[in-house]
Amino acid sequence: MAKFLILNGPNINILGRRMPEVYGARTLDEINREVAERAKSVGVEVSFYQSNVEGHLIDCIQEHWGKIQGIIINPGALMNYGYALKDALIDAAVPVIEVHLSNPYAREAWRRHSIISDIARGQIAGFGWRSYTAALDILAAQVKEEAGE
Amino acid sequence: MAKFLILNGPNINILGRRMPEVYGARTLDEINREVAERAKSVGVEVSFYQSNVEGHLIDCIQEHWGKIQGIIINPGALMNYGYALKDALIDAAVPVIEVHLSNPYAREAWRRHSIISDIARGQIAGFGWRSYTAALDILAAQVKEEAGE
Amino acid sequence: MAKFLILNGPNINILGRRMPEVYGARTLDEINREVAERAKSVGVEVSFYQSNVEGHLIDCIQEHWGKIQGIIINPGALMNYGYALKDALIDAAVPVIEVHLSNPYAREAWRRHSIISDIARGQIAGFGWRSYTAALDILAAQVKEEAGE
Amino acid sequence: MAKFLILNGPNINILGRRMPEVYGARTLDEINREVAERAKSVGVEVSFYQSNVEGHLIDCIQEHWGKIQGIIINPGALMNYGYALKDALIDAAVPVIEVHLSNPYAREAWRRHSIISDIARGQIAGFGWRSYTAALDILAAQVKEEAGE
Amino acid sequence: MAKFLILNGPNINILGRRMPEVYGARTLDEINREVAERAKSVGVEVSFYQSNVEGHLIDCIQEHWGKIQGIIINPGALMNYGYALKDALIDAAVPVIEVHLSNPYAREAWRRHSIISDIARGQIAGFGWRSYTAALDILAAQVKEEAGE
Amino acid sequence: MAKFLILNGPNINILGRRMPEVYGARTLDEINREVAERAKSVGVEVSFYQSNVEGHLIDCIQEHWGKIQGIIINPGALMNYGYALKDALIDAAVPVIEVHLSNPYAREAWRRHSIISDIARGQIAGFGWRSYTAALDILAAQVKEEAGE
Amino acid sequence: MAKFLILNGPNINILGRRMPEVYGARTLDEINREVAERAKSVGVEVSFYQSNVEGHLIDCIQEHWGKIQGIIINPGALMNYGYALKDALIDAAVPVIEVHLSNPYAREAWRRHSIISDIARGQIAGFGWRSYTAALDILAAQVKEEAGE
Amino acid sequence: MAKFLILNGPNINILGRRMPEVYGARTLDEINREVAERAKSVGVEVSFYQSNVEGHLIDCIQEHWGKIQGIIINPGALMNYGYALKDALIDAAVPVIEVHLSNPYAREAWRRHSIISDIARGQIAGFGWRSYTAALDILAAQVKEEAGE
Amino acid sequence: MAKFLILNGPNINILGRRMPEVYGARTLDEINREVAERAKSVGVEVSFYQSNVEGHLIDCIQEHWGKIQGIIINPGALMNYGYALKDALIDAAVPVIEVHLSNPYAREAWRRHSIISDIARGQIAGFGWRSYTAALDILAAQVKEEAGE
Amino acid sequence: MAKFLILNGPNINILGRRMPEVYGARTLDEINREVAERAKSVGVEVSFYQSNVEGHLIDCIQEHWGKIQGIIINPGALMNYGYALKDALIDAAVPVIEVHLSNPYAREAWRRHSIISDIARGQIAGFGWRSYTAALDILAAQVKEEAGE
Amino acid sequence: MAKFLILNGPNINILGRRMPEVYGARTLDEINREVAERAKSVGVEVSFYQSNVEGHLIDCIQEHWGKIQGIIINPGALMNYGYALKDALIDAAVPVIEVHLSNPYAREAWRRHSIISDIARGQIAGFGWRSYTAALDILAAQVKEEAGE
Amino acid sequence: MAKFLILNGPNINILGRRMPEVYGARTLDEINREVAERAKSVGVEVSFYQSNVEGHLIDCIQEHWGKIQGIIINPGALMNYGYALKDALIDAAVPVIEVHLSNPYAREAWRRHSIISDIARGQIAGFGWRSYTAALDILAAQVKEEAGE
Repeated sequence: MAKFLILNGPNINILGRRMPEVYGARTLDEINREVAERAKSVGVEVSFYQSNVEGHLIDCIQEHWGKIQGIIINPGALMNYGYALKDALIDAAVPVIEVHLSNPYAREAWRRHSIISDIARGQIAGFGWRSYTAALDILAAQVKEEAGE
Repeated sequence: MAKFLILNGPNINILGRRMPEVYGARTLDEINREVAERAKSVGVEVSFYQSNVEGHLIDCIQEHWGKIQGIIINPGALMNYGYALKDALIDAAVPVIEVHLSNPYAREAWRRHSIISDIARGQIAGFGWRSYTAALDILAAQVKEEAGE
Repeated sequence: MAKFLILNGPNINILGRRMPEVYGARTLDEINREVAERAKSVGVEVSFYQSNVEGHLIDCIQEHWGKIQGIIINPGALMNYGYALKDALIDAAVPVIEVHLSNPYAREAWRRHSIISDIARGQIAGFGWRSYTAALDILAAQVKEEAGE
Repeated sequence: MAKFLILNGPNINILGRRMPEVYGARTLDEINREVAERAKSVGVEVSFYQSNVEGHLIDCIQEHWGKIQGIIINPGALMNYGYALKDALIDAAVPVIEVHLSNPYAREAWRRHSIISDIARGQIAGFGWRSYTAALDILAAQVKEEAGE
Repeated sequence: MAKFLILNGPNINILGRRMPEVYGARTLDEINREVAERAKSVGVEVSFYQSNVEGHLIDCIQEHWGKIQGIIINPGALMNYGYALKDALIDAAVPVIEVHLSNPYAREAWRRHSIISDIARGQIAGFGWRSYTAALDILAAQVKEEAGE
Repeated sequence: MAKFLILNGPNINILGRRMPEVYGARTLDEINREVAERAKSVGVEVSFYQSNVEGHLIDCIQEHWGKIQGIIINPGALMNYGYALKDALIDAAVPVIEVHLSNPYAREAWRRHSIISDIARGQIAGFGWRSYTAALDILAAQVKEEAGE
Repeated sequence: MAKFLILNGPNINILGRRMPEVYGARTLDEINREVAERAKSVGVEVSFYQSNVEGHLIDCIQEHWGKIQGIIINPGALMNYGYALKDALIDAAVPVIEVHLSNPYAREAWRRHSIISDIARGQIAGFGWRSYTAALDILAAQVKEEAGE
Repeated sequence: MAKFLILNGPNINILGRRMPEVYGARTLDEINREVAERAKSVGVEVSFYQSNVEGHLIDCIQEHWGKIQGIIINPGALMNYGYALKDALIDAAVPVIEVHLSNPYAREAWRRHSIISDIARGQIAGFGWRSYTAALDILAAQVKEEAGE
Repeated sequence: MAKFLILNGPNINILGRRMPEVYGARTLDEINREVAERAKSVGVEVSFYQSNVEGHLIDCIQEHWGKIQGIIINPGALMNYGYALKDALIDAAVPVIEVHLSNPYAREAWRRHSIISDIARGQIAGFGWRSYTAALDILAAQVKEEAGE
Repeated sequence: MAKFLILNGPNINILGRRMPEVYGARTLDEINREVAERAKSVGVEVSFYQSNVEGHLIDCIQEHWGKIQGIIINPGALMNYGYALKDALIDAAVPVIEVHLSNPYAREAWRRHSIISDIARGQIAGFGWRSYTAALDILAAQVKEEAGE
Repeated sequence: MAKFLILNGPNINILGRRMPEVYGARTLDEINREVAERAKSVGVEVSFYQSNVEGHLIDCIQEHWGKIQGIIINPGALMNYGYALKDALIDAAVPVIEVHLSNPYAREAWRRHSIISDIARGQIAGFGWRSYTAALDILAAQVKEEAGE
Repeated sequence: MAKFLILNGPNINILGRRMPEVYGARTLDEINREVAERAKSVGVEVSFYQSNVEGHLIDCIQEHWGKIQGIIINPGALMNYGYALKDALIDAAVPVIEVHLSNPYAREAWRRHSIISDIARGQIAGFGWRSYTAALDILAAQVKEEAGE
């Protein structure tokens, strides 16, 4: 059974109380439960990690090396400058989907370019918690397809 | 029943024979059938239009004014300079989802910025035909949610 | 009697229902009627054309070659990238006045520079339908003056 | 009766002898008389001021605070760097129309962007002394309209 | 026998009356006749198309898919922003030669960079109608050579 | 009684031995004591935290959520790229004052722009330890004023 | 007794009626009184000057040459382009503190960089009239300290 | 006898006490005396003016209209932004020589480009008071030569 | 009989062994023979020169002053920075055609702009040795035409 | 005996399995053993530290304050944005050598500029593990030389 | 007796026949004679060198090392890119005056910035052959003054 | 036995007397002797060349074509603009190591980017003459390793 790592970067742990008009009213736990349920229904395993420290996100990716078939990551503000995180994602050598709760292209200038986008397989942005579940659906389907299942 | 307009810009009519390693092997007709089926299953109506002429895409959006609840658009190369198309999408005053078959951020410099992104509700890019179906899923769900259904 | 071509670019055909707080409440037909009346009172003939297709605006300019003494154009979003339209205006070899309903310099960055301005005789922007009638007044007066009338 | 301030920036006092092929043959006095006459015919009062000193233009605007309903300004070269003048115009809190005798977009690079344009209601440029009278016509009409007259 | 498509973009249909000191005195028909004759003498077939509408140029390229061995294109002002045309040329998957009547590098800034140049096999610019015939000579010779004739 | 968080970013823990001609001779402890004393005299509580790890500064801000009325922060070099820290400060939803010991605008290019300045209420920079105490004075006075005390 | 010059640039003379939500409700006279009182309490003399004319601010600085121990300046919009004022401040050869009522970094692009900052000892911005009094406190303390008092 | 206007911009009136290691030890009066003597020996008349106010420099140029055969100007910091002064120099329609005491290209970035240089006949910079006398020598010689003396 | 100078810049002497997949398999001698034969057949004289030293190319152009009717030049890497060569080509005062073996616009960024293009009559690039012969054909024809032959 | 700190930034701990064609096949442990041996042979002591967390690298540098005579650092992706790390290296006040396994100038744009280079004594890049040992050789030799040994 | 080297860069050897309306009608020999005469009258020795090869100019500077007290250089087009020449001038360690016949700031963009200006003592540009003699006058006077003569 | 070419660009022949505090006190001959000795001890042959003329460096590289296994080059100021030299190094098709005596990243802006770096195998910069010997050590070791010795 395919296993995916669901990564969340800085400040995403305070969803719910964080500008709900932008990021939605659900907490990260609620979103994770939603994702976990969807994982069951599409037949994949998921593992969750969040940190405010870029280096710990890197540690986590390295620890999962060889044990996962894909990564779904919401880099938070690290989308702007997290080149070390980017290197870790490249080194992981599995498909990466970049997700955002809000639409970064409709916000401040510094959010309008993600340094991670070019090494991701794709992006889903702007749909609140549904960005995560859509990413899971697609990643599960594509990984199965590519595995010849 | 909600109705969505599925718009495709220049050169997307030749999918299938167009760099299949980048855009996938399916033709636009095949993708549209996939989308039509999914539309049925999520309970929305869809209407399709493709043109190589920016102005005709604008004409089409204007003709659907007041008759649709959302737009899914793959602008093709107009992502780079189609400001008139952008104005038409703004004037349509319904949620817009921008989709791409390939991941533009991993390609040539001129594809790495979409002028339409800031007025879309969100983007889904990099997942071949699944970019369209995921957009449909989300748009259907969100429009229902917002309609209080 | 001098004859002028009044050209309107993409999305200007939906004036009235298009962001009325920005562009005003009048439809293009109403504006054209206002312009036609003013034309009568200043003793010039006017001919109207609008299209969402850049190439059709060019076709129209070419068809009027040698039959008009001036052009009043609201290029809409083509102000940003319509270099082919610009070439057609240069080739027309008559005075061109660029008009805008709203003040583009007070809006989004991409509207703050018109590629047509340097080949126009002048610009009138920000006064709603009055931008057109003021342009007509001036063009009529100047063309007469230059004709030695 | 509405009252407007007609402001002219540096070097506009020497119109007539100043590059007549660019700026026209009329002196500033002649233009002002033209404007004064037109003011009478449209039923508004006008007051004129010119200075080569940015700060004196600002002083003048401040002195007219609360006594005028609009400003027509030809900033001259201050269009390039007169941010203090810009602040004064903002603080005046009445509609501002920016006028130019010549078409700045067809001249040297440093004249192709006016720092004042974004806070003006609109611009009229390129029509010699007619830029002023057209501005007066429009400002008078709009101020009346907005006053519900 | 090899067949080439000779494409001409916006405003090239009015050659002859269009700034003859820049573009030469010949009409497009005259140039096409010259090209047709040369085609005979080098033993290739040619087919001509001109449009002011970018999308129609794309339609034309798509219709010739698989039926031509090369394209000679004068993109006109689309050299500045015709990314959809560029995509169509890439998808055509035959050698493309970009031609210009005048030398764009000696003209306005916006003509000094062609977005099509990087996907063309080569450029010939600045030689009036001879740019077309030289392109035909070379394309014919190279296509024969590559076909092992 | 209002409570403020006094945050210090990377390398500020080695004040005193760190380029004393630039940053002054006092250690961070000495500055904190000065601030603590001043806090007493203006009737507010203060809490101190320093870290070389951006993520730990974020953790700290999150832990104080809802328990403080203001933040005084010397971001150190994170002024250049700490967008995640910036997000945390925004989410804190209390007034933020940015302080610097030295005058960053008189130093290397990369210090001349702080990414945090636009979300702060104000900045105090260039006055050594007095930057902190002046910030405390002002924050205390303003918070009281706004609380209607 | 140390003497400081308190300089205010263009448009600061109309504080109070000038966008009070941005600049505060106090007039410049009221602020000056506040500053004068604080000067007494910290034992320094102050002298006030405001002008809308850059050159008069320079005249004033030159006239105080050798008679003052420090300058507190709110350059207003001259922060953007007042290089002659900057030269005068350099030539004064006393410590300069730059103050702003509002936080320029949170406003329009052209206010986000002060050309004066690099030659000032420090900046205090964003705290209304308190920016002046905090500057006075610090300047008085530092000048005394440096004088070995 | 040819007459020249010797203009000096902001802060040049305090030469002598102004950074003597950069600008030299002589006062402006001393330099002017040197220039006056040289004028006598080369047989031209000179007239001197200095102001810290850009607009007064413009007033002065306008007052000398038609009465001088050349201008030698040290614009001081107005070299960076004095576009109104530049317009006045153009309008004067006599040869202009730009002089600088120090070598601006070896100083701060903002001094490395003079907006006046392109409309001057030439520049002499870096030689202290000799920049003025050399300018006088050359201007006198060239004006005579051109007058056919 | 017209005489042309065929100039080749740095590293073009090692054609044949130099990246043959980019520049073709022919040596410069073989290309020159091809050009010499073509010269005979179109009735012009040619003279060849190659150097790795920019200054020697300039010397050569100067020595041919008044003795040639045109120049065909492949500047090699001097296309990027050879402004002295450019000056020499301008001073030669005969038509210049710039040729390149490969298509520079499809290569590294620094090759995508030729500083010589704006002073050439035209460019031919991307066709291997045929770039030279096509240039010769055109130059011969145009020089005859212009000579009224 | 001189002591050096050998620092490695993010993702360097997974050398060996990380893109071996770019970074080489050796693990960090193997490289460190190589360095340790070389240290013995050149008579210096070395101490190793690696972290994925920028702040921990800073902590480590601070802890070694006064105990080392030099630093050899491979900053990994922190070469792009690690300004806090840079500050820590400056504060360490010992010679720093920057090393890279691969040649960053031949890779992606964001790796082509290291923000650390200007404060290092020198760089060695592109030689795999030999970059470290060459750095050690040189640092040891120079430190001895400077100590007068 | 002080000795100066008069250096001229590429294409300056063909003065007289080179665009006389820009550079004047005199040949380099004629200018050199003028300079030689002036040298006699101000009591200095001069030595002349011109080359089209940057490296030979450098050779010449190196050969004069220790034998000259100043350099007057007209770098020609090397003003744009001759960094090696710049290094040679720095290494010469004598005062350098940069001269130009025409005013580069009034010409093409690439002539508007000289890379040599920042290491020269000063510039004299725009006065034809008089640029050289004025430079000689000043250099002679300053070198004497500095030598305490 | 492997043979390497040691190339030195403009102004490196005057090492020793050239800013010794930057480049060190040794002459080029002394450095070459050091390198020759080291060559012996690591078992490779070396050949030396220096020129101030870019083209001669290219000639030299071409003459060594096929006779050397590597190049060590200090390009001097050609690091900034020597694209022809770069082409020659590419064409040489052997490993290239770029060396610098000083650390260019800590000097003037124009030295902070080497156009040669991306085609070199690696760089060693900042260590005086040791940059050369370290390059030799590494190149010898790598060439042997790659030759399977």
